[in-house]
Amino acid sequence: MTETKKLAQASLESLYRIFTVPEAPDSTLGKIDQSISQNLSGFLQEHIVASERDLALIEQDFSNPFIPQDPSFVSEQIEFLLDKVVAQSVHIASPSFVGHMASALPYFMLPLSRIMTALNQNLVKVETSKAFTPLERQVIGMLHQLIYGQDAPFYQRWMHEPRQALGSFCSGGTLANLTALWAARNNLFPASESFAGLAQEGLAAGLQHSGYRALAVLVSERGHYSLGKAADILGIGRRNLVAIETDAHNRIRTDLLEARCDQLQREGIKVMAIVGVAGSSETGSVDPLNAMADIAQTRHIHFHVDSAWGGPTLFSRKHRHLLAGIERADSVTIDAHKQLYVPMGAGICLFKRPETLASVEHHAEYIIRKGSRDLGSHSVEGSRPGMAILVHAGLHIIARNGYELLIDEGIAKAKAFAEVIRGTPDFELISAPELNILTYRYAPPELQAGLRSKDAHLRSRINEGLNRLTRIMQKIQRGRGLSFVSRTQLMPEQYARQPIVVLRVVLANPLTTLDILREILEEQREIARDPSVQEEIRKLLLSTPATADQAHTEQA
Amino acid sequence: MTETKKLAQASLESLYRIFTVPEAPDSTLGKIDQSISQNLSGFLQEHIVASERDLALIEQDFSNPFIPQDPSFVSEQIEFLLDKVVAQSVHIASPSFVGHMASALPYFMLPLSRIMTALNQNLVKVETSKAFTPLERQVIGMLHQLIYGQDAPFYQRWMHEPRQALGSFCSGGTLANLTALWAARNNLFPASESFAGLAQEGLAAGLQHSGYRALAVLVSERGHYSLGKAADILGIGRRNLVAIETDAHNRIRTDLLEARCDQLQREGIKVMAIVGVAGSSETGSVDPLNAMADIAQTRHIHFHVDSAWGGPTLFSRKHRHLLAGIERADSVTIDAHKQLYVPMGAGICLFKRPETLASVEHHAEYIIRKGSRDLGSHSVEGSRPGMAILVHAGLHIIARNGYELLIDEGIAKAKAFAEVIRGTPDFELISAPELNILTYRYAPPELQAGLRSKDAHLRSRINEGLNRLTRIMQKIQRGRGLSFVSRTQLMPEQYARQPIVVLRVVLANPLTTLDILREILEEQREIARDPSVQEEIRKLLLSTPATADQAHTEQA
Repeated sequence: MTETKKLAQASLESLYRIFTVPEAPDSTLGKIDQSISQNLSGFLQEHIVASERDLALIEQDFSNPFIPQDPSFVSEQIEFLLDKVVAQSVHIASPSFVGHMASALPYFMLPLSRIMTALNQNLVKVETSKAFTPLERQVIGMLHQLIYGQDAPFYQRWMHEPRQALGSFCSGGTLANLTALWAARNNLFPASESFAGLAQEGLAAGLQHSGYRALAVLVSERGHYSLGKAADILGIGRRNLVAIETDAHNRIRTDLLEARCDQLQREGIKVMAIVGVAGSSETGSVDPLNAMADIAQTRHIHFHVDSAWGGPTLFSRKHRHLLAGIERADSVTIDAHKQLYVPMGAGICLFKRPETLASVEHHAEYIIRKGSRDLGSHSVEGSRPGMAILVHAGLHIIARNGYELLIDEGIAKAKAFAEVIRGTPDFELISAPELNILTYRYAPPELQAGLRSKDAHLRSRINEGLNRLTRIMQKIQRGRGLSFVSRTQLMPEQYARQPIVVLRVVLANPLTTLDILREILEEQREIARDPSVQEEIRKLLLSTPATADQAHTEQA
Repeated sequence: MTETKKLAQASLESLYRIFTVPEAPDSTLGKIDQSISQNLSGFLQEHIVASERDLALIEQDFSNPFIPQDPSFVSEQIEFLLDKVVAQSVHIASPSFVGHMASALPYFMLPLSRIMTALNQNLVKVETSKAFTPLERQVIGMLHQLIYGQDAPFYQRWMHEPRQALGSFCSGGTLANLTALWAARNNLFPASESFAGLAQEGLAAGLQHSGYRALAVLVSERGHYSLGKAADILGIGRRNLVAIETDAHNRIRTDLLEARCDQLQREGIKVMAIVGVAGSSETGSVDPLNAMADIAQTRHIHFHVDSAWGGPTLFSRKHRHLLAGIERADSVTIDAHKQLYVPMGAGICLFKRPETLASVEHHAEYIIRKGSRDLGSHSVEGSRPGMAILVHAGLHIIARNGYELLIDEGIAKAKAFAEVIRGTPDFELISAPELNILTYRYAPPELQAGLRSKDAHLRSRINEGLNRLTRIMQKIQRGRGLSFVSRTQLMPEQYARQPIVVLRVVLANPLTTLDILREILEEQREIARDPSVQEEIRKLLLSTPATADQAHTEQA
């Protein structure tokens, strides 16, 4: 009975105890806590069950909609969570989990997160965050400096200026993109003598006042789905988020972008923002930012760069040139919970000019009063945790040199893996890595030969078959739980923009080695030998009988 | 040199170590970690410096905008954070910090948060969260059941239904309110034969299609500032968030609400939503929800209830009647990081009908695909942490009985404190507590007497003087760091709606006692004896010479 924190009688006394008496070190929770501190990867390895359980089965453990009347023991609840949640969670930190933008975390992030939770500051206002307010402003300043490279006097002037902000810290890239487009939209129709401003009067009144029919946001077809959501939320409309075609390298075609800008202008539609992608979620490709900045600049259009993923590439002296032009963006999104290696829930939107965010400024009587330093006056969110302390720690403990190494290693590994795939007859590289993301698929040599046929109809049928195959294989692999690659759908130029389902690999975990990646291919080959997959392949070969011959003709 | 995690040379090897070697128990960070585990309140007491340092001075510690080239030792960074951040943070958990909606946390939340961080799941999709997805759906279902009280078959049908959602989990009440209004707005103008829907076509096209001039949202003048922000973001316009006057108890005047609805309708403005406040941030007052539901229902207007603060009052059999009618709301906001005692960063928006949120549904190719169970298809945010695990634990370990006790105690304490203030000649209660929030001010008896004068001009001048006084005193008290009450500005009926600056007390910390509250009054009395405050009082008495006489006349 060391854990007597049962509130069954729910006496006040027992209730107070959970607020005043810490978990004993030999309690269930105390032991788990220590085991995570001392050996995180051991804990994860031991407790996460590798093989996938059907989600419908897992749901049965979470099927009671009634909040219990009587309190449970802490130990009871923890055992439930260990057994039903931890065991059935995803081993994000595993070096063979290379399917999404998640990675292992540096060890120091764990105890630091505990300090953050223990302090439980609320960054909406100074009165509930004190030093966290200047700390967050410094973090924003440091990332601003990374991108825009202004000099010391600039930051001395602006970093802690109460009435302005160089950026907005939020829970993630989606809110960062929303913040950028919100500010851009409001800045379009500011207050004047005859108009109180879009923020006050609303979007319809703003359009009417200006004579435009609608607003539009232009981004490549590789743009993140959060932009469509932002277009919806901001009242612009999803169909006014215009997707511009990409080239063979998944980069926006600036000729089409330029033409579209001018066409929309002629149609009475105001292009509110052009969004450059610096590390697309699906292929890691980077748009030609300088050319985009030119187009935006000559037309006085807000230029936003979504570098939620790719932003930290700026740490790499070798690769930062890929992002050249980002310093010309009016706003930039970076996710700290991606390549700054901070736990989930930290994104930042940076603004080149301190005055841009003023268009979304707001106040209240009891907090974020005018003239206060309260961070909440420029943010989409209200109450927010002090995640900035984790970013601050990363920027100091890992620092430029450390982040540079992480970036360089990830890109080198992606390029090396691409070479491995290219040199393997039964796999096909679909998008080569520009940063540390690549896509490929399993495709038996006979079918690859068929894909080189002159018969467009045949090629298309093979691709359709391979799409089915890729879906099945990815699901089997995920279910086995030894490794994880994700899948998405691209429309690559090499296949005349036919939708192609691909396997997607993101190489951000420094513990992932080329050997592990080779094993992943080996596992996929093994999955291909699975009877269900073999059956699919057999059917595909049967339904495209000309495959081998055509290929032969082609090669001849 | 136990902490040799310096990356000065930033060799790959040293970089890998921070991902693989835990902090040693005898390292700086290791020791802090243990000390927080074993004695949180001792740690906070010891490390947080009580007396306030000027923010401009604190800023000097966060003035370098340049990300360092070379890595620091973990210990170096931790000592900096301990000295400059922890020391200068706000002692939120202190029982005498009663100024904002923050409290001490139950102890089990700390190790549980560590488990959450260690797993680092991303709830945007099942592939990065697995069991956390049904867990979050259950938490949403449980809170839905608390509010709407549907039966078991309802939740069996809907709780885990992939294509629908009973709510949306987010980082806080602001996003929850935004989610509710976003869904309400989109549902106004759905897709039809001649119109692709507001989400697709945008707000201006929606208005044009429907023939309305604008949209409006109606809420009492006590409505949270996040609603104005939501009106801005959603393109409705801040001026179309119409503030309805409140009665003497800070509750919306439903006669005015009704009249305004009809007036706007006549003006061609569509009332998009009526928002009821259930626990206003400033006074804790609760709107007459049933009467509001009637008004909304007969006019087919979306009825949203912002019970970010007051929602958990539903746990109290004694007080839940105050929220009667909340079950008629189309959507409801609850903050888990407030009265569910979860760390910062957890809000939930619940929807009465499973189909309401469908109007904001969105998909992508690589995640949140159609038909998937991915939670990201109905949320404002994208990537999100697994905070739901903490709410799940609270609902089981504290349970209905525990939350009921917490709520009942808080309200009882507020009422007792109000009695103490009423019985104290030098303080004046401004808003009595309906829930656990009250406002008051320091006002020497001579001035209180003057406030009872028939001379409206005199009363007004005294109030202006008291406003200055309250501001000064609140600032001094905050600066001393022994206790904290916040301040805001109300326009109470008893003072003919003159703006009155008040001290605001929120009683959510179970460790706050009535004795501590009495000490806070004693401290304020002491602050009033401060020469600077005495000087203000003297000036005020001099400038209102009739004060004593008038009061005398009045009483005679």
